[in-house]
Amino acid sequence: MKVLPKALTLVIDSMQKLPGVGPRSAERYAYFLLKSDPRKAGELASSLAALHEDISYCPKTFALIDKDEKISPLYSSPSRNKQLVAVVEDPFDVVAIENTGQFSGTYHVLNGLISPIDGISPESLHINELVKRVREDGVKELIIATNASVEGESTAHYIASQFDDDKVKITRLAQGMPIGLDIEYADQITLGRAIEGRKPI
Amino acid sequence: MKVLPKALTLVIDSMQKLPGVGPRSAERYAYFLLKSDPRKAGELASSLAALHEDISYCPKTFALIDKDEKISPLYSSPSRNKQLVAVVEDPFDVVAIENTGQFSGTYHVLNGLISPIDGISPESLHINELVKRVREDGVKELIIATNASVEGESTAHYIASQFDDDKVKITRLAQGMPIGLDIEYADQITLGRAIEGRKPI
Repeated sequence: MKVLPKALTLVIDSMQKLPGVGPRSAERYAYFLLKSDPRKAGELASSLAALHEDISYCPKTFALIDKDEKISPLYSSPSRNKQLVAVVEDPFDVVAIENTGQFSGTYHVLNGLISPIDGISPESLHINELVKRVREDGVKELIIATNASVEGESTAHYIASQFDDDKVKITRLAQGMPIGLDIEYADQITLGRAIEGRKPI
Repeated sequence: MKVLPKALTLVIDSMQKLPGVGPRSAERYAYFLLKSDPRKAGELASSLAALHEDISYCPKTFALIDKDEKISPLYSSPSRNKQLVAVVEDPFDVVAIENTGQFSGTYHVLNGLISPIDGISPESLHINELVKRVREDGVKELIIATNASVEGESTAHYIASQFDDDKVKITRLAQGMPIGLDIEYADQITLGRAIEGRKPI
């Protein structure tokens, strides 16, 4: 016998497709929206309906932009240094770096990391566009800001290998102790890198 | 400087209003939907838009029903015993009890539990309707299936006090050891109730 109304089951089923959302959370979200002001569900519905339509990719940096922008403001703004480029995996890495307030260069979003196991080859990332951009814009430094993981490291090395003959300086984010972590709780690789990269006071 | 497109920020903001969803999860959901087939976001959007419109409350049991149903099929079906009523806090408790396959009575959804701290008084729950229903349908047994919490217990006692003069039998779900839990890990209240309610083999 049907226990829940169809409209509620549909919301629960759709919510369950989100990453990490199980049946319990999906039920909780759906019931919360049902008990709340209908405007809350309405706002979420209309924002989702517009999601794909109103978003585009910057043809230069591959960051996400509004459809009515031609190019990312983080590239076109005269305050940004086009000769300094941070190479990142996805658009949220741009947000994280912007939040530091310590970077005035531009970005290049790879849209993934090289991972043969997941079928992600260098050709499926925006690496060729990066090579072209480095030449066109006369880029002086590429900061490869990929994660400190196996895929992040191998992508960094692959990108570096594309610029062997160029004069562009290629750097990688420093690896070491995160702020606030007790040394006794640091994993051995992190602590090893921190020792390796030690600096005079 | 605007870092993310407006359409994405809107989805992230709306997602963050769901219970237990923080900024990171909201970003993850939004980015997942953006990278997925647009149909996925579309389905979620249309299910949400229909949520409030297509759902109604059963005037007898206060369970959730489709708008085009007049009464809950869990009440109207001739296979359900209308003289046995399980009193529950919310519509998902109905789902949980139905899933046991061991209950052939009908339900009464209170829509909350008495909780003076949260401003929930007996009048804001469907208790008066329950009293009326018990008389009209000649209910013989009320199983009060509220949580084993302070609010659940006090709601159960309040409901029982409404039927002092009636001949209706009022029962409460058994409390004791959940299946699969090691005795050494049981909390003392649960174990205490299990001892109190022990049964001959």
